[in-house]
Amino acid sequence: MSKATAVGPSNIAFTKYWGRKDEILRLPENGSVSMNLSNLLTTTTVAFSDSLTSDEITINGGGLEEGETARVIKHLDRVRKLANINLKTRVVSSNNFPSGTGLSSSASGFAALTLAASAAAGLKLSEKELSILARQGSGSACRSIPSGFVEWLDGDTSETSYAVQIFPSSHWAIADVVGVVSEGKKEVSTSAGQQSAQSSPFMPLRLSRMKGKNEQVKKLIEEKNFKEFGQLLEAEALELHTIMLTQIPALIYWTPGTLRIMKLVNHWRAEGIPVYFTINTGQDIHLICEEENIHKVQKKLGHLEEVRDIIINTPGEGARLTHQHLF
Amino acid sequence: MSKATAVGPSNIAFTKYWGRKDEILRLPENGSVSMNLSNLLTTTTVAFSDSLTSDEITINGGGLEEGETARVIKHLDRVRKLANINLKTRVVSSNNFPSGTGLSSSASGFAALTLAASAAAGLKLSEKELSILARQGSGSACRSIPSGFVEWLDGDTSETSYAVQIFPSSHWAIADVVGVVSEGKKEVSTSAGQQSAQSSPFMPLRLSRMKGKNEQVKKLIEEKNFKEFGQLLEAEALELHTIMLTQIPALIYWTPGTLRIMKLVNHWRAEGIPVYFTINTGQDIHLICEEENIHKVQKKLGHLEEVRDIIINTPGEGARLTHQHLF
Repeated sequence: MSKATAVGPSNIAFTKYWGRKDEILRLPENGSVSMNLSNLLTTTTVAFSDSLTSDEITINGGGLEEGETARVIKHLDRVRKLANINLKTRVVSSNNFPSGTGLSSSASGFAALTLAASAAAGLKLSEKELSILARQGSGSACRSIPSGFVEWLDGDTSETSYAVQIFPSSHWAIADVVGVVSEGKKEVSTSAGQQSAQSSPFMPLRLSRMKGKNEQVKKLIEEKNFKEFGQLLEAEALELHTIMLTQIPALIYWTPGTLRIMKLVNHWRAEGIPVYFTINTGQDIHLICEEENIHKVQKKLGHLEEVRDIIINTPGEGARLTHQHLF
Repeated sequence: MSKATAVGPSNIAFTKYWGRKDEILRLPENGSVSMNLSNLLTTTTVAFSDSLTSDEITINGGGLEEGETARVIKHLDRVRKLANINLKTRVVSSNNFPSGTGLSSSASGFAALTLAASAAAGLKLSEKELSILARQGSGSACRSIPSGFVEWLDGDTSETSYAVQIFPSSHWAIADVVGVVSEGKKEVSTSAGQQSAQSSPFMPLRLSRMKGKNEQVKKLIEEKNFKEFGQLLEAEALELHTIMLTQIPALIYWTPGTLRIMKLVNHWRAEGIPVYFTINTGQDIHLICEEENIHKVQKKLGHLEEVRDIIINTPGEGARLTHQHLF
């Protein structure tokens, strides 16, 4: 038996991944820029053993739905193929946060799974190879491989579509204060919604502007221009949701609680707190602020009945191996 | 002294008016199609008198904010100019519904004001002339002049930008069941938001599609194809709001209650009730259904704590004179 444990972070995208030019390879329509999160983590142990007759997968102490299990096994098959082995696995994975509400548990989960499975299989993959592999499990997982501030390059092939570090986590002391709005699972999975991205009449125009937007956000991160950075990421989040709201059928990921906080953020800024929101394909809200304002933002969120949990993140490291045991 | 009283209906737009190609003349960027509402009404009395030294305006028993008063006086000046008179007026107006929450009180208000003031001034205006005049007070008010189902023609000049009946109110037994979500006034007035419509990157594409959309909605009304009509108007409402969400600054007119009902409507359809929503620039939600389903929709809305009031409308008549007294 060989065994490895890895920790993978979730990441928050400042420019979003929505729509794919290749469904199978999970090649996105556009590049994106994100930050790994220090405190939204999946820990995954993968053990290959010749005593197993099928893959056994436990997530957060329980099983998975059929489609989700198939997706994990498919990913393990990719690793088995690369390592040229045929053994079944036991996978035990747990998140330190609720899954399926827009906190990108599939990013942290597939990043941790990719690293743990490839290490347990004895593969020695480069960061680039890990990122390419993770991407095939869940697109945004490729951004959870490198550390700190990350860009998912806009490649047209599997070999050129991976994430690289643009700045280390120490570059800029900003934070993502997450308001967990509800623990209910969203009604439409991100994967399903992605497939109809092109049904929005606004998608082509969005795509034509993404390259410039990514250049702009990288420049603002480099310059640590928080105000313009915040304006850009908030407008980008609204634009992502605009695309989803105009898809056929329309996707509404926000809940009443999400919307209430979106509107409050505007008031908090008027009160002098520099804070901007971004939202993934789910109801939870990510409040981006500079480190010195974490406490103020946390306090504002803490007063709201819609917020079940607050998770404070600073720029985090990428996926890392914590245990490895090879025979 | 000469005096007249008119009743003006609010109207619900199936395709929306957003963005103006002429701010002063209130010429919209695109034509739109609407239905007058039987039960959202403004009643306005205008009296011209040589004993008055200034215009006295009372709305819903009280005064108006400065900007609103100036807008009404400017409209009275248009009437005075047309009638070639110089007398001051007493205007008393009241709505049978809350104003400033997206129920288009400016449409019903300026339609009633236009008709009452022009009648009191002794003018004999055609429906077209009244519609052109009403438009200059508040764009969508021009749609509240003719009866029933109405199209605001896409004209490039003041003389060609007015509303006409496309079908009488008896054409199709549909209803607009309005859920009044909150009586709080919206944070950004429609007029202010209109002026930055062009700051949405998606506005040009929207405009390029409006002509076809208007043709389509008229065809569906003609055919009484409720399902496709409902899908079109709901998608159109979402599109209007995505334009506003991507304006700079972003306009968020929905409240948590609005969003909750939007999501519920989808569930109600899944349960077998053919109902679709549309939303103006405000938080109230308009549920469009066929007449036989009014009771079901009303019952659903009645269970929601966010709904303060329910107003049931069928296709209504346009602005009409109820009293006239000329000396």
